[in-house]
Amino acid sequence: MDFETIKQRLDKLLDSDRMGELRGALMMLNVVDIAEYMDSLEKDKMLKTYRILPKDISAEVFTYLSDEQKQYLMELIGDSETAELISNMFVDDAVDFLEELPANLVTRLLKNVNEEQRRTINRFLSYPENSAGSIMTIEFCSLKEGLTVAEAMKYLKQNSLDKETIYTLYVLGPSHQLRGTLPLRRLILADENAVVDSIMSTNYIYANTLDDQEQVAELVRRYDLMSVPIVDKEGRMVGIVTADDIMDVIEEEATEDIEKMNALLPSEDEYLKTKPVKLAGNRLPWLMFMMISSIFTELIISHFSGSLAGAFTACIPMLMGTGGNSGSQSSTLVIRGLALGEISPGDALKVLWKEFRVSLIVSALLAVVTFLIQYFIFDAGMDALAISLAMIGTVTLAKCIGCTLPLLAKKLKLDPALMAAPLITTIVDVCSLLILVLCAHLAF
Amino acid sequence: MDFETIKQRLDKLLDSDRMGELRGALMMLNVVDIAEYMDSLEKDKMLKTYRILPKDISAEVFTYLSDEQKQYLMELIGDSETAELISNMFVDDAVDFLEELPANLVTRLLKNVNEEQRRTINRFLSYPENSAGSIMTIEFCSLKEGLTVAEAMKYLKQNSLDKETIYTLYVLGPSHQLRGTLPLRRLILADENAVVDSIMSTNYIYANTLDDQEQVAELVRRYDLMSVPIVDKEGRMVGIVTADDIMDVIEEEATEDIEKMNALLPSEDEYLKTKPVKLAGNRLPWLMFMMISSIFTELIISHFSGSLAGAFTACIPMLMGTGGNSGSQSSTLVIRGLALGEISPGDALKVLWKEFRVSLIVSALLAVVTFLIQYFIFDAGMDALAISLAMIGTVTLAKCIGCTLPLLAKKLKLDPALMAAPLITTIVDVCSLLILVLCAHLAF
Repeated sequence: MDFETIKQRLDKLLDSDRMGELRGALMMLNVVDIAEYMDSLEKDKMLKTYRILPKDISAEVFTYLSDEQKQYLMELIGDSETAELISNMFVDDAVDFLEELPANLVTRLLKNVNEEQRRTINRFLSYPENSAGSIMTIEFCSLKEGLTVAEAMKYLKQNSLDKETIYTLYVLGPSHQLRGTLPLRRLILADENAVVDSIMSTNYIYANTLDDQEQVAELVRRYDLMSVPIVDKEGRMVGIVTADDIMDVIEEEATEDIEKMNALLPSEDEYLKTKPVKLAGNRLPWLMFMMISSIFTELIISHFSGSLAGAFTACIPMLMGTGGNSGSQSSTLVIRGLALGEISPGDALKVLWKEFRVSLIVSALLAVVTFLIQYFIFDAGMDALAISLAMIGTVTLAKCIGCTLPLLAKKLKLDPALMAAPLITTIVDVCSLLILVLCAHLAF
Repeated sequence: MDFETIKQRLDKLLDSDRMGELRGALMMLNVVDIAEYMDSLEKDKMLKTYRILPKDISAEVFTYLSDEQKQYLMELIGDSETAELISNMFVDDAVDFLEELPANLVTRLLKNVNEEQRRTINRFLSYPENSAGSIMTIEFCSLKEGLTVAEAMKYLKQNSLDKETIYTLYVLGPSHQLRGTLPLRRLILADENAVVDSIMSTNYIYANTLDDQEQVAELVRRYDLMSVPIVDKEGRMVGIVTADDIMDVIEEEATEDIEKMNALLPSEDEYLKTKPVKLAGNRLPWLMFMMISSIFTELIISHFSGSLAGAFTACIPMLMGTGGNSGSQSSTLVIRGLALGEISPGDALKVLWKEFRVSLIVSALLAVVTFLIQYFIFDAGMDALAISLAMIGTVTLAKCIGCTLPLLAKKLKLDPALMAAPLITTIVDVCSLLILVLCAHLAF
């Protein structure tokens, strides 16, 4: 059954006020789908639907609502009920939610949350954005050193209800230092009288609270982990980051790279929910910068246009376009290779040599076609040869620039994704013009 | 300790032939790191290292080796030992490995694998590339209907050693139809005498063997799942896809989109391991297509160059560049929005209206700066006004084209990622020239 059919059925129940049936129908759905349904409703209907949800799932549904609907619902149910809602969330979800709110509202809401949870939330809110600390959850399962397998299983049955995952257990020393990790499956299969210390893994993978979320993603990806323990400066274990959070990180980072690679300031807002003024603000800086940079090409053309034959002027966009595309191909592969850890700045010479060979093959073939086009369609005579030569020069230079700049950026600790199509194109434009002018002069 | 330090220590042990110590040292590492170390060795040293690995981890280490080293090792150890290695792998890893090999080699290897496993592997090899079937694993834990919790726990202890994950259990009917899913934590916490049917979830999420891997990724992402059961045409459960496989899918799809968006044929090969001829082959088709398309801009310029004032000719690259960048910004956001499910073709009018408003803001500001540049730096007089007007027209049209084409592609079941910067730029180039000519003629 697709979402539209589900929505129609639920709407019918809601409109005819059959709330008992609606509640029953909603219970057949996943919380994500309930949230999507509520997102599609008007304010008052949404509140009505929210009210009939059982308490144990309403907090979870809330975390999946759109930011807009969250705001509405908060206004409708008031501060104290919102605070209760926050108390029922996993800490990482609560923090995600609070981070989107204005500071004064956060303070007001946290007043209604109990002391201990307020302290925890405040600690989370102070982790830098995109750090491991800011995306971790504290609902993990820990065991004390020295427990037997039977004791551990008993402890688990009593204390694991509100944990986000129990499939990896963490064995902690007296001051919460992480001693080892223990997959639940190993615990289940182990002898009842064994001590957990003897079956845990001591060469575990972990990250620090202040590590960037990308580093944590890299660990999860590299070692195929389901969760990573997060440890503070003093070596105490303070939380875990789970694979599903990492999936969001990976997707976010890819989106950010794609945006940067296309002359956009990165933004985490959904397109359809962003105001035109905001969208314009994300686009204008690079457009303006690149437009002003093209003063150089304009100066070159103005200066040489008198002395260039018509064929040369007319082929400028073709030459610039091909150069720009060639360069952006190279920079794209290098940027992505860097992001996935397949290429490192140390490979610079290898990459350059490879790009050089690729550009010889590509530019030779392009040059032949250019010659045919210029000679037969545009009747450029022997100028066609000079233009083909310029094509070889432009493509080769573009590819070499395209692969070098992202590596250079990485070396200088800048973001390689900024060295993508738009910037490469702007630089290549100037170079291709100079090459063309040079070839034109050689031709005479 | 970083990889370089580890490698130095291991190298020292290997070079002085202290194999016992080397074995001990290797056992302190994660299999992924062991594989990376072996990747860095020459053939004979790699074989020597491989030989001292305990049997139970050598198959796992093997799956993490680079394709090159896998081939070497296969040649060195011969068919029958390779077949044994394959028998020790999880089926999905074995299939991944075999898919990279030439068909005759696969047949030869499978001869040495036992009948049942050969059948399974052959079935896997017949699933279409990128389908759920091709990435699933069959090592999941199933329970029969009607078992009690205590019986299920006992069954689990005896039968879960070789399963990829036991954290979600699948309750199957007599002919393997999927009846429900049961998180292990719920089983652990449940009353010993309860029947599994009464505690399992019946509104589970699943996918079909022939579904595209992207659809499965969408499910995992949307519902924050750790694994998805895969069901065949007859409704029988045949495997699961786990979150760590999905992470690879998400990353692959992002890479593919980024490549397509930058005029590259998508490729799954690592950049540094790809031959220049292959790289050139992935780049040439789009470069050639776009170069030949630019015949149009050349025709327009040749035709009008006599009648255009110098200022107009000189500003062409600036105008085209800005137009291309504006269009690619819009197409980027729409392509990514479509990929993440935030935008659907039904939103076309909303998107177009939004882009129209954005382009008014952006182009107005760009036009003012253009006017100042043309008037004061290039002394273009009143032509500056016509050029600014052309800027407004170009940016607006570029953004409208940029947002419409990906939506159109999606509607026509083509890949929206193809409607990115390079193609948009090529189209916008022609449009911006026509607009410029129009504005130039209005100015006289």
